[in-house]
Amino acid sequence: MRLEKDCIGEELVPDNALYGIHSLRAARNFPITRERVNPLIIASYLQIKKAAAIANQQAGTLDSNKALLIIAACNQLLLSKDFESVIVPAIQGGAGTSTNMNINEIVANLAMKLGRQKGKLTVKIHPNDDVNQCQSTNDTYPTAGKIAMLKDLAPLEDAVNSLIHVLEEKAHQYQSTVKVGRTQLQDAVPTTFGRSFSASAAMFKRDLQKMKAIEKTLATVNLGGTAIGTGINSTRDYQRAVMPLLNRITGLSLTQADDLIEATQNSDAFSTFSGILKGLALNLTKFCNDLRLLSSGPQAGLAELSLPKVQAGSSIMPGKINPVIPEVVNQVAFEVIGKDVTVTLAVENGQLELNAFEPIIFKEVLTSESHLTAAIKTLVKNCLRGIQVNVNHCQNEVDQSAIAATILSPYLGYEKTTALIKEAERVQIPVKTLVKQKQLLASTLIDNLFSPEVLTNQNQADLQKLKSLAGHSH
Amino acid sequence: MRLEKDCIGEELVPDNALYGIHSLRAARNFPITRERVNPLIIASYLQIKKAAAIANQQAGTLDSNKALLIIAACNQLLLSKDFESVIVPAIQGGAGTSTNMNINEIVANLAMKLGRQKGKLTVKIHPNDDVNQCQSTNDTYPTAGKIAMLKDLAPLEDAVNSLIHVLEEKAHQYQSTVKVGRTQLQDAVPTTFGRSFSASAAMFKRDLQKMKAIEKTLATVNLGGTAIGTGINSTRDYQRAVMPLLNRITGLSLTQADDLIEATQNSDAFSTFSGILKGLALNLTKFCNDLRLLSSGPQAGLAELSLPKVQAGSSIMPGKINPVIPEVVNQVAFEVIGKDVTVTLAVENGQLELNAFEPIIFKEVLTSESHLTAAIKTLVKNCLRGIQVNVNHCQNEVDQSAIAATILSPYLGYEKTTALIKEAERVQIPVKTLVKQKQLLASTLIDNLFSPEVLTNQNQADLQKLKSLAGHSH
Amino acid sequence: MRLEKDCIGEELVPDNALYGIHSLRAARNFPITRERVNPLIIASYLQIKKAAAIANQQAGTLDSNKALLIIAACNQLLLSKDFESVIVPAIQGGAGTSTNMNINEIVANLAMKLGRQKGKLTVKIHPNDDVNQCQSTNDTYPTAGKIAMLKDLAPLEDAVNSLIHVLEEKAHQYQSTVKVGRTQLQDAVPTTFGRSFSASAAMFKRDLQKMKAIEKTLATVNLGGTAIGTGINSTRDYQRAVMPLLNRITGLSLTQADDLIEATQNSDAFSTFSGILKGLALNLTKFCNDLRLLSSGPQAGLAELSLPKVQAGSSIMPGKINPVIPEVVNQVAFEVIGKDVTVTLAVENGQLELNAFEPIIFKEVLTSESHLTAAIKTLVKNCLRGIQVNVNHCQNEVDQSAIAATILSPYLGYEKTTALIKEAERVQIPVKTLVKQKQLLASTLIDNLFSPEVLTNQNQADLQKLKSLAGHSH
Amino acid sequence: MRLEKDCIGEELVPDNALYGIHSLRAARNFPITRERVNPLIIASYLQIKKAAAIANQQAGTLDSNKALLIIAACNQLLLSKDFESVIVPAIQGGAGTSTNMNINEIVANLAMKLGRQKGKLTVKIHPNDDVNQCQSTNDTYPTAGKIAMLKDLAPLEDAVNSLIHVLEEKAHQYQSTVKVGRTQLQDAVPTTFGRSFSASAAMFKRDLQKMKAIEKTLATVNLGGTAIGTGINSTRDYQRAVMPLLNRITGLSLTQADDLIEATQNSDAFSTFSGILKGLALNLTKFCNDLRLLSSGPQAGLAELSLPKVQAGSSIMPGKINPVIPEVVNQVAFEVIGKDVTVTLAVENGQLELNAFEPIIFKEVLTSESHLTAAIKTLVKNCLRGIQVNVNHCQNEVDQSAIAATILSPYLGYEKTTALIKEAERVQIPVKTLVKQKQLLASTLIDNLFSPEVLTNQNQADLQKLKSLAGHSH
Repeated sequence: MRLEKDCIGEELVPDNALYGIHSLRAARNFPITRERVNPLIIASYLQIKKAAAIANQQAGTLDSNKALLIIAACNQLLLSKDFESVIVPAIQGGAGTSTNMNINEIVANLAMKLGRQKGKLTVKIHPNDDVNQCQSTNDTYPTAGKIAMLKDLAPLEDAVNSLIHVLEEKAHQYQSTVKVGRTQLQDAVPTTFGRSFSASAAMFKRDLQKMKAIEKTLATVNLGGTAIGTGINSTRDYQRAVMPLLNRITGLSLTQADDLIEATQNSDAFSTFSGILKGLALNLTKFCNDLRLLSSGPQAGLAELSLPKVQAGSSIMPGKINPVIPEVVNQVAFEVIGKDVTVTLAVENGQLELNAFEPIIFKEVLTSESHLTAAIKTLVKNCLRGIQVNVNHCQNEVDQSAIAATILSPYLGYEKTTALIKEAERVQIPVKTLVKQKQLLASTLIDNLFSPEVLTNQNQADLQKLKSLAGHSH
Repeated sequence: MRLEKDCIGEELVPDNALYGIHSLRAARNFPITRERVNPLIIASYLQIKKAAAIANQQAGTLDSNKALLIIAACNQLLLSKDFESVIVPAIQGGAGTSTNMNINEIVANLAMKLGRQKGKLTVKIHPNDDVNQCQSTNDTYPTAGKIAMLKDLAPLEDAVNSLIHVLEEKAHQYQSTVKVGRTQLQDAVPTTFGRSFSASAAMFKRDLQKMKAIEKTLATVNLGGTAIGTGINSTRDYQRAVMPLLNRITGLSLTQADDLIEATQNSDAFSTFSGILKGLALNLTKFCNDLRLLSSGPQAGLAELSLPKVQAGSSIMPGKINPVIPEVVNQVAFEVIGKDVTVTLAVENGQLELNAFEPIIFKEVLTSESHLTAAIKTLVKNCLRGIQVNVNHCQNEVDQSAIAATILSPYLGYEKTTALIKEAERVQIPVKTLVKQKQLLASTLIDNLFSPEVLTNQNQADLQKLKSLAGHSH
Repeated sequence: MRLEKDCIGEELVPDNALYGIHSLRAARNFPITRERVNPLIIASYLQIKKAAAIANQQAGTLDSNKALLIIAACNQLLLSKDFESVIVPAIQGGAGTSTNMNINEIVANLAMKLGRQKGKLTVKIHPNDDVNQCQSTNDTYPTAGKIAMLKDLAPLEDAVNSLIHVLEEKAHQYQSTVKVGRTQLQDAVPTTFGRSFSASAAMFKRDLQKMKAIEKTLATVNLGGTAIGTGINSTRDYQRAVMPLLNRITGLSLTQADDLIEATQNSDAFSTFSGILKGLALNLTKFCNDLRLLSSGPQAGLAELSLPKVQAGSSIMPGKINPVIPEVVNQVAFEVIGKDVTVTLAVENGQLELNAFEPIIFKEVLTSESHLTAAIKTLVKNCLRGIQVNVNHCQNEVDQSAIAATILSPYLGYEKTTALIKEAERVQIPVKTLVKQKQLLASTLIDNLFSPEVLTNQNQADLQKLKSLAGHSH
Repeated sequence: MRLEKDCIGEELVPDNALYGIHSLRAARNFPITRERVNPLIIASYLQIKKAAAIANQQAGTLDSNKALLIIAACNQLLLSKDFESVIVPAIQGGAGTSTNMNINEIVANLAMKLGRQKGKLTVKIHPNDDVNQCQSTNDTYPTAGKIAMLKDLAPLEDAVNSLIHVLEEKAHQYQSTVKVGRTQLQDAVPTTFGRSFSASAAMFKRDLQKMKAIEKTLATVNLGGTAIGTGINSTRDYQRAVMPLLNRITGLSLTQADDLIEATQNSDAFSTFSGILKGLALNLTKFCNDLRLLSSGPQAGLAELSLPKVQAGSSIMPGKINPVIPEVVNQVAFEVIGKDVTVTLAVENGQLELNAFEPIIFKEVLTSESHLTAAIKTLVKNCLRGIQVNVNHCQNEVDQSAIAATILSPYLGYEKTTALIKEAERVQIPVKTLVKQKQLLASTLIDNLFSPEVLTNQNQADLQKLKSLAGHSH
């Protein structure tokens, strides 16, 4: 054990530990959950430390020996992805200082260790003065958070893209499959499954656009602001150099916020982003609810869709199959919507020059991103790809639907059509048959009107022509 | 116009206005909504003022002439229910002081007016020193709020009671109407509509119990606490007298909180109550969702229930009828759940010795109460009373349901039953027929098992007897 | 009384009523609240009816006599703004059909009344066949909702603009007023009030940008989709004509959605917009919380800001003044955040080809818009314009702040500076004095470092120069 | 690898795996998170399986050899707490069937393994027919969930109890420490820190009562209901025996719900419980917000409280200390409030005979329980125990507070007192001095009124006596 000291007092730290006294205290102070800081945050932080070390070396405020060892330490940690020495929990007080200090401590200690391995026994690297030089938690922590969110956004966008792709394939496959439309769960005029799948694809494209549009907001960071955004204790040369370096290291296109004070104290970028994830969750809910509804049955349900059978559905009811994939997506959506409330509360409670509650914000947003990605992937792979429309059943429903007689309304008027539908229901004869029996319209016109193309208005609004052909007005 | 003065300065007030300078300023400061303070709050406040005047008179700290005029003014306002002089808006800053002062001002001015009418020209009644004597907004405002909530709770409980009553009637009416059960929207073992209605009744009984249980919390008030709950500037005689007087006037059973400091600063009683209203909203949502689902159709839906037709459903689709009553209840439920979040935020933002955000809390909770009451009433009157079960359709669905073969599982085992169901679906023969054809069980046992009583297990768990009769074990 | 008939049966309607049987039934079915349909929705709906009548006349499917009377009726209602005949409540089942039918009925009846006034006694105008021609509630209702939201957005944007303007003025006024920064409510390095006001202005600019960006989404409507978006029972000529006509009538730049099926069934545009309003509410909360915190006192608080005194603060504590304007804004913000949850739930519950819960969505979003507008206006007028910074007090706090010694850290190192601060606190001497006493740095450098400009880093990052001048490195 | 078969098809399962084909499919279907089913659920489930095996053995429907092996398997798993074979993730579709089947499979396989070890080579134990006998997921899963919640509730209650205990100690310690009261963040009449701590204790006692009261709800389970609550495929003997057995095994006092259909389909018990946890979170938020506010400083804040220093506060600002413990508790509270929304949504989406979303409900509620427990523990241990009141500073603030002059109002009247306070502020003399100078009241009365006991009204409402002594009325 080695003895370490800080402004509070002294603590014994395991001799071979890369972390130091700050990390140790934090781990003791926040024993809420075993979940540690998200690896994406840690990796992003290490990239920031590396960029800062290079910038400070170039500025001449960090000794080259120190800088090279710090850079080497960052590289080794980034390469190995061994973050076991980051011992502070994901849920932590202190506005991220514990995470930053844990990183500062392990980079400093690893750098000195590497120095010793290279024979540089006397190089002392200080977590605050050297690794954290020209930086504060106030600027590095939100910067690391945004980088992590951006890194996690790419796979989510890929997942949504693949979802859209499969929906468009299904839309093409079932382009002309007629089905009963439903408003307020009551039978409405017919539509096609092609249109339904296509509408879902269009809905998710909107989510994709929103995700694309938020990228710029997430890429605007407050690095360089140091404490509260004034940039105190940083140098001009560092300021000039650090952002381009960070972009080179991360491969991203980050830019520094115009107003660093503002960017440090306000965290609405996170609630806005969380809101976009919530929006995607809402759309997924609607979509999965519809899937579950349309595949209800097999005997006593709507039974328009058959979902792939992916597991037995009951421990007691033999042969039962449930829509487990949409169900799990529904639950992820509920989770994401709940997490958005947590983020809302955390953002709402920011005070004066800082929001102290960024740790929970980062935890929730990053979890929402990865759960949504995984949920969409299983939805695409284990459900959507194998989905089948029960075409005959859908056609039968349309044939039996009285409400399809809406098509007669422009010819017979709303009231006469209403009476006709009520009579049809009473005498249990399809409206089409009834209207023919009554010779209310020419038989060919009736056939034309009740054709799938006209019923679903696939040639958009050719009513006028039909009407003039019919020579009829109510 | 008359000139009035306060610690800010002077203002002209319309000569015949009962309200004064404070009310005027408040009305100008908070022009958010035209909605004024809830009449139940005003009436409750007037009852508090009356009780306080009597108590202060008895204590000898309020001149009898003044007291009698104040009481007369309160009585007149309570009787006429003309609250036009309460001009402060429902959404207001100032933790209710504007409401209290508006009441103080109109009572003082009306009292003096009544005095003048009786020839008592020289009696000056002061809004603060007299009408507000021994009181503060800190204690009277939450007390008025709680009284208002209690007054609004009775009709809500009545509505829930009538809902339960109708459900129990329906449960009795459809006691033995067999229907397909559904879990996860997939066909499950059969049940009866009697059980369904009965289950809903039991669910709402739980809500009723929770409402009953919260009454005590709402009836515990901090009257007597004056500013921040220390009771400063009140007298012992007032303290002794005011609560019994208020109970006599309101007809309620209010009690003073043990710890007035605590009762003044914490507003979790309101979030707890709002949570109970949210719970009722959640149960109403579930119930109305089920109604809409089970009445979907008429041709292409589940069509197990027929809701009363209460209005035409479409401007374009003749004869369409929609479940508009459950839909409006659903929306009230969403509104109540949203209001609970508003209340949550308001409670969460209380600070130190007071929660400044009680005005929005009271507005939201009282609105939730009255909307829920109205929603349940229309649900009972315009939907539930006239609801009908499509008995034959339900029986047909049970007959066609393959999953009913679950009943065979204890005899044949889970795997053999699974195979049987799959075969039945493939060859499109009812499982009952198939199992008879295959002579897997005695024909009488099969008939017995597939009887509605056994299928729905109405004689709870007589399996053992059947099994021993069958002399069969898998 | 006159007798009217619909698919349900017959009802007596007051003879002089413009509304008809549908409106009457709806008013009876939804007695939840006295609040009627938002006037902006009614006006927008009338504009749609007018555009449709012109389009149908041009298409030759609506008799010119009828069309002219319908147009005249719409004009008269729009001009008079007398919407008393719209009797259906704001909270309604039926996905807006009641609102649409109420409009259809009053337009038809008023048109016939105008016809009779002009001697056209025989022109019968039908609410469905004529006024609603080529339309459905499914397309007109969300279109009217979006137009109303757009109309309500302009004043909100104006209010936010004026808020930004005042903040920028204040930022200029207090550009060089030094104050203690605070992170996590603990003293941090100094900043200026200019920067604080400026940061708030920047924050609200972001809200403004988001509002501007959503306008296009709101302007994309599904008019022309009729039932479920297939465009059934409309004509090509109508489709071509109606949107340009509606734009001319409303003065807006609406466009028809590419996929009308999609635009009819998904309502995420509303939750997205509600989310933007929630974002503004969150930022207002943060801002008002800070105002209340910084103006706490007068003796036992931070007392950095003095808010204008707008009303007496207490019924019992003489001379007390409270931050009532920020408090009312806080409450509106809580209300808006709650309404966003209601909207979220309503959107989440959309099913298949329609979201039946648009009425509550429209009610909540329009209320949020107008409450936010009013709240920001009173914040600007009654609070921000007259706000004053207590300059001397702020300077004194900076002078006493030990944490300002952070400026020494690059020269002395983190640990030595820590020790210095602890010693200063122990011996109760300002750090600046102590560091001079100890002659740890040149006296001129110390004076320079502790100057307001350097402390608040107003010349961004000139540390290097200072450092090289000092010829000092820790 | 061994080949297993189900109603979907065949899969290869690792030869030594205790889990089977169902678990394998589920793990593949739900790759959302690495988090597995909560160990408390698993343990509770094993206790149910054990109780059921004993009950079925006693009923004669489960062979004794099988029963003993099943019991032995449950015991071994419960003892070892090695749940590695429960491979299904915490977030799962299928309403818990995957969890139940994973348990059924591992118990069956371990039982047969134990059988083989004992030479009973031919005993075949079936996951469904034997381990799951007389059970369904529909009843066992919610039962296991409730047992787990009850087990997790005890430590939470302990934590709240210890919180209350420390608060009462602090209340005693600072019983007579006078401090400025604050309403709306503005100075109000004085109070004592004893009262403040005592009020917080009383607040948390209310949470404790609510937790106690909900225990009965959680202890009411639907075990015995099997599929959808009809009790199908269970036996009377099992029904009679299983609950007492389960109580003996768990040490709890569970009771069977009166209406098993109801108890199976409605999940409002969970949202009610979640609401209670949310209530505790709200109270913790208020309390921690107050702690952070009152300990703000050290120089430029309220500085009434000193929290124990538990870690360095900044990577850049030397000597800075932050209130990290209240901050972490705040974040847990935000998390819990967010999770309550997730639970609300999950409950709201229950349909017909079952709520399919119990897995996310259980995950969220159990996490909230354990996080709250841990948060309160660290709050007590690392913050509250060591908290100190800055007594002198508090007394100074009271002495300087003008609003304390409220005590004069009953003697001088509201308006004269207002004028006095304004004058005192203008001439910068304490009100007490000013009122003496002006000889408005007897000097001894003034001293008496401004004594801490009278100012804070510690002898509750002795105003009358003082007043009569003064012989004074305004």
